[in-house]
Amino acid sequence: MPTTDALYSLDATTLALRLARRELTAEALVRDGLARIADREPQVRAFAYLDAEGALAAARALDAGPIRGPLHGLPLGMKDVFDTADMPTAYGSPIHAGHRPTCDAAIVALCREAGAVLVGKTVTTEFATYHPGPTCHPHAPDRTPGGSSSGSAAAVADGMLPLATGTQTAGSIIRPAAFCGVVGFKPTHGRVSRSGLKMLSETLDTVGGFGRSVPDAALLASVLTGDAGLRVSSEAPHAGGVRVGLFAGPDAARMDADMQALWERVCARLSRLGTQPGDLAVPAWFEPLARLQTDVMQAEMARSLSHERLRHAELFSPRLAGMIEAGLSLDAADHVRHLQQVHDARHAARELFAHHDLLIAPSTIGEAVLQGEGTGDPLFCRAWTVLGLPCLHLPLGVGRHGLSIGLQLIGPALADQAVLQAGAWLHDRLRD
Amino acid sequence: MPTTDALYSLDATTLALRLARRELTAEALVRDGLARIADREPQVRAFAYLDAEGALAAARALDAGPIRGPLHGLPLGMKDVFDTADMPTAYGSPIHAGHRPTCDAAIVALCREAGAVLVGKTVTTEFATYHPGPTCHPHAPDRTPGGSSSGSAAAVADGMLPLATGTQTAGSIIRPAAFCGVVGFKPTHGRVSRSGLKMLSETLDTVGGFGRSVPDAALLASVLTGDAGLRVSSEAPHAGGVRVGLFAGPDAARMDADMQALWERVCARLSRLGTQPGDLAVPAWFEPLARLQTDVMQAEMARSLSHERLRHAELFSPRLAGMIEAGLSLDAADHVRHLQQVHDARHAARELFAHHDLLIAPSTIGEAVLQGEGTGDPLFCRAWTVLGLPCLHLPLGVGRHGLSIGLQLIGPALADQAVLQAGAWLHDRLRD
Repeated sequence: MPTTDALYSLDATTLALRLARRELTAEALVRDGLARIADREPQVRAFAYLDAEGALAAARALDAGPIRGPLHGLPLGMKDVFDTADMPTAYGSPIHAGHRPTCDAAIVALCREAGAVLVGKTVTTEFATYHPGPTCHPHAPDRTPGGSSSGSAAAVADGMLPLATGTQTAGSIIRPAAFCGVVGFKPTHGRVSRSGLKMLSETLDTVGGFGRSVPDAALLASVLTGDAGLRVSSEAPHAGGVRVGLFAGPDAARMDADMQALWERVCARLSRLGTQPGDLAVPAWFEPLARLQTDVMQAEMARSLSHERLRHAELFSPRLAGMIEAGLSLDAADHVRHLQQVHDARHAARELFAHHDLLIAPSTIGEAVLQGEGTGDPLFCRAWTVLGLPCLHLPLGVGRHGLSIGLQLIGPALADQAVLQAGAWLHDRLRD
Repeated sequence: MPTTDALYSLDATTLALRLARRELTAEALVRDGLARIADREPQVRAFAYLDAEGALAAARALDAGPIRGPLHGLPLGMKDVFDTADMPTAYGSPIHAGHRPTCDAAIVALCREAGAVLVGKTVTTEFATYHPGPTCHPHAPDRTPGGSSSGSAAAVADGMLPLATGTQTAGSIIRPAAFCGVVGFKPTHGRVSRSGLKMLSETLDTVGGFGRSVPDAALLASVLTGDAGLRVSSEAPHAGGVRVGLFAGPDAARMDADMQALWERVCARLSRLGTQPGDLAVPAWFEPLARLQTDVMQAEMARSLSHERLRHAELFSPRLAGMIEAGLSLDAADHVRHLQQVHDARHAARELFAHHDLLIAPSTIGEAVLQGEGTGDPLFCRAWTVLGLPCLHLPLGVGRHGLSIGLQLIGPALADQAVLQAGAWLHDRLRD
């Protein structure tokens, strides 16, 4: 058994096993995490709200009772777009500062039921859009951790928490996972309840999470979806037979030199692994999807944030105000046409998997950008969010500044299990 | 201009025109509605909460200012599953009795922006499922108004309100509209924001509403969706060229004698209207959809109501507790298979419209059932909710007890405008 000092560097799946065997107490683990948070939070600023006393009380209650479920005793960070009955929930906006919901969001309740210890609410950008919160990149304070799930990704990357939740409407799980160098998983659209989530876009908002390994992200996803079949053992079954399509996409040329080099290295290695990689041509219907993502998101968020727009518009950031303005000015007939394009594209997406089980694609343009440049460009995530496909970010290398870069593994709709299984095996074989 | 006494019998579109021309004040209209409510509410019990003072204040403010929008001055009932910042919101459950949300749901804000006067919250069944609220059928107190949007349909049918909102997860808009004899419209799934709705089922929950005519329901739908193109003038354009498929469906034999007779009469009349009606065979993929609706709803609601299940399960009705139990016991792999079936069926649904612009189908088995039999069987609605297609209930005749019966007009996904346009024209020509 490791010393308490080192606990924060261990995987959630390793910790869960020790907790379940009572080799480790939830209280000891929470204390370890709180010490790490006390040390690092002044720099990283990952938390919108920290509930140290509540977390310790919950941990002690878990230690005194039976094993509750697969997350028994594991500290968890909850993105501050999910309602919590015992912690304030501000959705990253001054409009809701100090707001106290009366109910837990569905996933908050489900994680508690599974034995998770909610340590706090993690920083989100303003309503999970683009105006950044205070979080810094844990390994490069002048850089962004990515958004919108900024605090969740940074806290997991920094060892403050083994697991944290996120949401993605453009690229808000995959991009911060990529920038911070952790594993991020966006399940198939619609598999996780959004009850109690501050909804931005009906069509796009997808709930997922972060861990430091594929089995960790899979463990959290199994609780979020209620599908125990998503769990992956740390000894992932051999996935050498999986056929991986190489999909650099319509914006391949936008990858920077670091990402280009990583892409070539990984493609070469996939060949040697016998995964029958093959380059996929970009179908014509795929090309407009990134633009479509922006249009659908703006039109839907302009309506979902109507209460705020009508009563507190002066508290929107200029960028959010501009997006809402753009959404409101979109012609209704165009919006209907866009929704039809989403329906059509989700169906057409099946053809991407005609000859491949999974696809691999870039996650970002490059490393985490400087703070002044916002939370980074979600360019390489937008189309996959429109398609609603399961996406798993794998940190696979480093860029010129020593920061993490990686790729995403993508499966057909509802093939979340296949993505996680193959992802665990591939991650060990593709990273530097 | 009619006397104030008769206002409650007028269409919303007629009233909206008089309000916009300042021939009628919002205050006079609200006072008229409140008088009707005072008279009838002790019997009908359509309201979970009535805000007479708030409604009068809002009406006076509207009268003193510019025309706000297409619902300017129109009294509106809001189903008590939508959060309201100024009225309690209990979702039809004792668990949330007296709950005071801090935000308006998106559609509440949008209706206010359009000038609607929120008169109160209308009764919903328990979390919009099957345990009935206190509402009685306005024309037969021993019978159900249908559920789950019981209060909305009853209040509109009884002249208490010209317009009210609803949601449908199984048959909760079309069935109460049918039982109460009003027009109900369920737009394409995903066209109306569910932000601030107490969500039951991601895959199925759909927001819509009730009026006393197709133009009225279309007027409300135009505000809910933000699509002014949905509005239909009371002189609906000629739709004689529309090709209407007759789809009695896999449960055609379940229609009672009243509904069979109505079905035959309407089909014969459609022939004479030149709408080229043709019987549609039931595709094999359609047959399991009603059962699929139950499975998906139960699996998803068991998760979306997690907060309530974990903290207040003793306050669930036995039927709701049973549904949640069934949902939790469903195998996760089966649920994934069900979601795949939904995806596939939504795509396959296009073939139903290969030779027809619209379909006509039964709305219910027959007239409103007795109170002891629950809120009636949503059998004829389940598949259409799974498919997410726009459905418009048209009251077209009466059954053996003198209560309304009718049929639903159904369009392809996103063809809401076509359904409402043709529906307005057909309604005038198909009803007795």
